[in-house]
Amino acid sequence: MSDYIEPRILKGFRDFLPAAEITRRNLVEKIEVSFRSYGFVPIDTPALEYAEILLGKGGGETEKQIYRFKDNGDRDVALRFDLTVPFARFLAEHREELHFPFKRYHIAKVWRGENTQRGRYREFTQCDFDIIGSDSAASDFEIIHIMSKTLPAIAGGKVIIRINHRGLFNRFLSRLGLLEVSVDILRTVDKLAKIGQEKTLALLSLLVGDSKAKDILDFIGLSQIPGGRSFSETLVAITAAAGPCPESEHLGLIHSFMVDSGVADSVVLDPSITRGLDYYTGIVFESFLAELPDIGSICSGGRYDNLVGLYSADKRSPLRGVGTSIGIDRLIAGLEALGRLQIEQSYAFIAIACIKEAAGGAYQALAEKIRLAGIPCEVFMEEEKLTKQFQLAEKKGFRWLIIPDGENPAGTLTLRDLSKRENREGLSLKELIGILSCDTVN
Amino acid sequence: MSDYIEPRILKGFRDFLPAAEITRRNLVEKIEVSFRSYGFVPIDTPALEYAEILLGKGGGETEKQIYRFKDNGDRDVALRFDLTVPFARFLAEHREELHFPFKRYHIAKVWRGENTQRGRYREFTQCDFDIIGSDSAASDFEIIHIMSKTLPAIAGGKVIIRINHRGLFNRFLSRLGLLEVSVDILRTVDKLAKIGQEKTLALLSLLVGDSKAKDILDFIGLSQIPGGRSFSETLVAITAAAGPCPESEHLGLIHSFMVDSGVADSVVLDPSITRGLDYYTGIVFESFLAELPDIGSICSGGRYDNLVGLYSADKRSPLRGVGTSIGIDRLIAGLEALGRLQIEQSYAFIAIACIKEAAGGAYQALAEKIRLAGIPCEVFMEEEKLTKQFQLAEKKGFRWLIIPDGENPAGTLTLRDLSKRENREGLSLKELIGILSCDTVN
Repeated sequence: MSDYIEPRILKGFRDFLPAAEITRRNLVEKIEVSFRSYGFVPIDTPALEYAEILLGKGGGETEKQIYRFKDNGDRDVALRFDLTVPFARFLAEHREELHFPFKRYHIAKVWRGENTQRGRYREFTQCDFDIIGSDSAASDFEIIHIMSKTLPAIAGGKVIIRINHRGLFNRFLSRLGLLEVSVDILRTVDKLAKIGQEKTLALLSLLVGDSKAKDILDFIGLSQIPGGRSFSETLVAITAAAGPCPESEHLGLIHSFMVDSGVADSVVLDPSITRGLDYYTGIVFESFLAELPDIGSICSGGRYDNLVGLYSADKRSPLRGVGTSIGIDRLIAGLEALGRLQIEQSYAFIAIACIKEAAGGAYQALAEKIRLAGIPCEVFMEEEKLTKQFQLAEKKGFRWLIIPDGENPAGTLTLRDLSKRENREGLSLKELIGILSCDTVN
Repeated sequence: MSDYIEPRILKGFRDFLPAAEITRRNLVEKIEVSFRSYGFVPIDTPALEYAEILLGKGGGETEKQIYRFKDNGDRDVALRFDLTVPFARFLAEHREELHFPFKRYHIAKVWRGENTQRGRYREFTQCDFDIIGSDSAASDFEIIHIMSKTLPAIAGGKVIIRINHRGLFNRFLSRLGLLEVSVDILRTVDKLAKIGQEKTLALLSLLVGDSKAKDILDFIGLSQIPGGRSFSETLVAITAAAGPCPESEHLGLIHSFMVDSGVADSVVLDPSITRGLDYYTGIVFESFLAELPDIGSICSGGRYDNLVGLYSADKRSPLRGVGTSIGIDRLIAGLEALGRLQIEQSYAFIAIACIKEAAGGAYQALAEKIRLAGIPCEVFMEEEKLTKQFQLAEKKGFRWLIIPDGENPAGTLTLRDLSKRENREGLSLKELIGILSCDTVN
């Protein structure tokens, strides 16, 4: 019998080695800096909640995928499967302690026992941001503004944001006398990109008949003429089809905000964007890497009517909101496919070689002076041959190795450029910091 | 019957509202900047693992506290209860992909079904950093160096680091013929601070008899003479009691490193520090807020012999390491008790009032220019009376409110100082950014 336990992890779960974890953190930290600059604040909620809270009135797909169990106190508990449901519970519970409009972000792990064959993970990071307690066009627009500023910056290239208004689509369906089957129609239309024009038409025909199915497809295709239609042109076309209405004016106002703030270029009005989830009631968005639209939306969301209804006895004062979720894993996969993922093995790019074990304190003091200049600096710990230390430094992804004087660790320094395999000798600490500072900038 | 679900969370779990979450993040981000500056790299592991992996050969207390259940695939799984066991599994699994000495940090949530009456949480953040694959005094010392630089910086006051060497204590026990009961003795001695001198003596007497119990208490009290003993004096005293040995030399070398790097002042050699956990084999540390030692150690750890033994068939090449864990919750509680916790409700301290709904785009464009100057800026969304907007800004913790011109949003600006309730009118954007930049610096 083996006397050890085989090291392994659960299917659908991942270890993040340093390079992967640094990549993920760099991305998340950039996103957070952006959220914070708009006045969004972070919250956190428990990973584990009462199953009743997380499942709500739902069940179905969610119930099958959720990690649910009895805890040691025989409570029926579950791991959160998204950040929206816990946020709804949070809002209902802390409403009196918050100030509205409330702008929050939440970046955290969620768990779903999904089929891993489709390349899905059972543990992944969600990154949500929402504005709660405002019906204004300004709040819908601010979410679009954040997306249009943040996504291209982290993607390193153009991002197209496709928006639509659920209410306007419903007006159109109402004209066709189809409002009662709107949820089914929305879910079908949402599959368009995946299953194609023909199959969508067939599915819609089963729901509403051939003629109306064609009307629907015509409507959602209104922005897709050769060469494309501008936002204003599409708005005119869909308003003509749905009839003049407040939703059309709302979209027009948002568009004028986009023009006034210079972000209109990256936003397309696209009536085919509906988002399958039926809790959206107003504006909806999806966004795509311009060079790689086929991987799907990297940031999606919309406006919902009352997030807290399920957890609040007070039905008279709903909490409306608008929010979006950035798909971190998909974004990273996209950047990798585009060869645009910068892999760093460490936050430091310089180390101090260990020439004499007894000088360990002096090396650390030297490193501390370099750190005080804003430059991360590792200290090597093993008194080994220099060639071995060069190899270790290269493996660890360092660009420079400082070689102190063997006799006098406080004396002049040699700086080795590891890629060029060149040494610069006789440097003072000041000269060395000067060289490294330039390297940081470049 | 009620038609809503009562919003509540599980006992021992917490919601983090923005102010609490920002406080926690500010602390963690400072710690991370420090770790990174020493060349430490982050990793992450799954929250959920095979129960077999997490429980190891153990059981006992851990088994009672762990969240363990069968997943939908009938696998025996559990939530991690610390970051050390998953790290051991991680090292065994990825050994060939890592470069040693491997310096890693891991800051993440862990879960324990503990008794919440003692003020313990069932979900809390652990913050571990370790150096793996080096036996050197330099690696033990680097952990102490990080603690001595980082802890006072985040605590805003003096921190005392108490260190000891398990091996030296064992030498002493060996002289007394007590090596075989060393684990029991260590566990008893570890309770000293909690149960006091008398009870410890009584417990030790039961284990080893009155005379040897007194010898042990004398040994661990060797640093505690009136006025205190210096590191060197205590080292001489315990070396005399335990006999000259490599462990004593090792401590001497570490001390010389501390002197050479200027961090000796905050470190005390204290033979009463033993750490109850029996996997420590070398140096051990605890650290205390100088003004509030009674809340206990805020950062503890030590050296262990072979972290991966349980998960590796190759017994010939153990992975030794040294590491420490910062108690984030305890540190925050301590800072709060000392009145030193800076509470911020937002990362932004300025907002733009909404004078006319139609100017939403112009307000966002104005905010963007302020953000580009490095100043986070919120945009208010509701066209309401200015007095209401002043109130909201104060509630949200802002210091300034920008009031754009009602007729010309691109015109001159009024800046309201919310605490002084004073307006400065007719400002250009450049003047306004100048005032805000000075405020950020102060």
